[in-house]
Amino acid sequence: MNFSSKYLERAVDEISSLPGIGRKTALRLALHLLRSETEEVGALASSLIALKERVNQCHTCGNLSDHTMCEICANPTRNKEIICVVEDIRDVMAIENTGQFKGLYHVLGGIISPMEGVGPAELNIESLIKRVSEQPPLEIIFGLSTTMEGETTTFYLYKKLAAFDLKLSAIARGIAVGDQLEYADEVTLARSISNRVPYENSLSQNHNS
Amino acid sequence: MNFSSKYLERAVDEISSLPGIGRKTALRLALHLLRSETEEVGALASSLIALKERVNQCHTCGNLSDHTMCEICANPTRNKEIICVVEDIRDVMAIENTGQFKGLYHVLGGIISPMEGVGPAELNIESLIKRVSEQPPLEIIFGLSTTMEGETTTFYLYKKLAAFDLKLSAIARGIAVGDQLEYADEVTLARSISNRVPYENSLSQNHNS
Repeated sequence: MNFSSKYLERAVDEISSLPGIGRKTALRLALHLLRSETEEVGALASSLIALKERVNQCHTCGNLSDHTMCEICANPTRNKEIICVVEDIRDVMAIENTGQFKGLYHVLGGIISPMEGVGPAELNIESLIKRVSEQPPLEIIFGLSTTMEGETTTFYLYKKLAAFDLKLSAIARGIAVGDQLEYADEVTLARSISNRVPYENSLSQNHNS
Repeated sequence: MNFSSKYLERAVDEISSLPGIGRKTALRLALHLLRSETEEVGALASSLIALKERVNQCHTCGNLSDHTMCEICANPTRNKEIICVVEDIRDVMAIENTGQFKGLYHVLGGIISPMEGVGPAELNIESLIKRVSEQPPLEIIFGLSTTMEGETTTFYLYKKLAAFDLKLSAIARGIAVGDQLEYADEVTLARSISNRVPYENSLSQNHNS
């Protein structure tokens, strides 16, 4: 691309350095910003600065927060005896949206992925072990993806946590609510049969943990 | 979405106000920025501010520039007798990339679109008429899209410019180089036949205007 303005070129360079945004999209966004009001562009820019300067990781669980302890860890009504281990804060948001889980979280900040150079040391695993040894909960729920990397991470955590006297569980895998059996993949269907639950449990939509 | 940080929420709100970026993508981008270095986020934010503060429209043609006159209008080697009218600076960049056009441009900044509330007054049409009446070129090339809106805009310009003593032309429509006839749509194929060119012209790949 030949740019007629070096400021436009710099903005396109910066925007296209974001993941999943190519140079054509970056140019489209830059031209949109040029047509926007100065205040709107200023608000966007300052929100990005504030994001980086003001958002912290919760010292206890790794969730994002404006304080050193997140709202969930600071909430006295949450059940401190259950910790759900998740990959990312997006998983925390997804589980919180269900309104079904009243325990605490531990956000790993990723999963073990040798291909991408992410080992256990890069994740919040040490802090989980420390947390569990200092104040052992009754149960830890593994809430990681069923991908190869997710299963590897879960197994690694399982090995690390097996020494503690805790209940270790994993979120249920099975046929999604509303899905038809005939379209389910074989592995999921097989697992949904081997992990079948008492009929009364399958009815309770508002079963709180 | 329930956000654990109001700064994160504000950043997601701002990013998702950009066209074509939904809240899930905005969250993904915000989390990427959180993981980036402070300097990188600062560079992105300052590039957006500089974009808005430092980039001007060329007073002559409407192209974007860091000065009051763009590089193309300021270039003494360009042919001032031919003006190509385009919708957007992206069209200028696309034509410049071919290296085939040595004339000047006039960037309308959009096309007439009653559905989106864009009338002739919103576009750089008045400045084109003024430019042509002050210093008449020999030829004006209409380089707008062949959509309904593009054709309407071209016809509007044609009516406005018919009073001047100029050659008015439109960029050629036809089968794209490398395309097979059988896959071309009927309208394009019909037009490529009625607008056929002498065989010698179809050979010249480096015919400069």
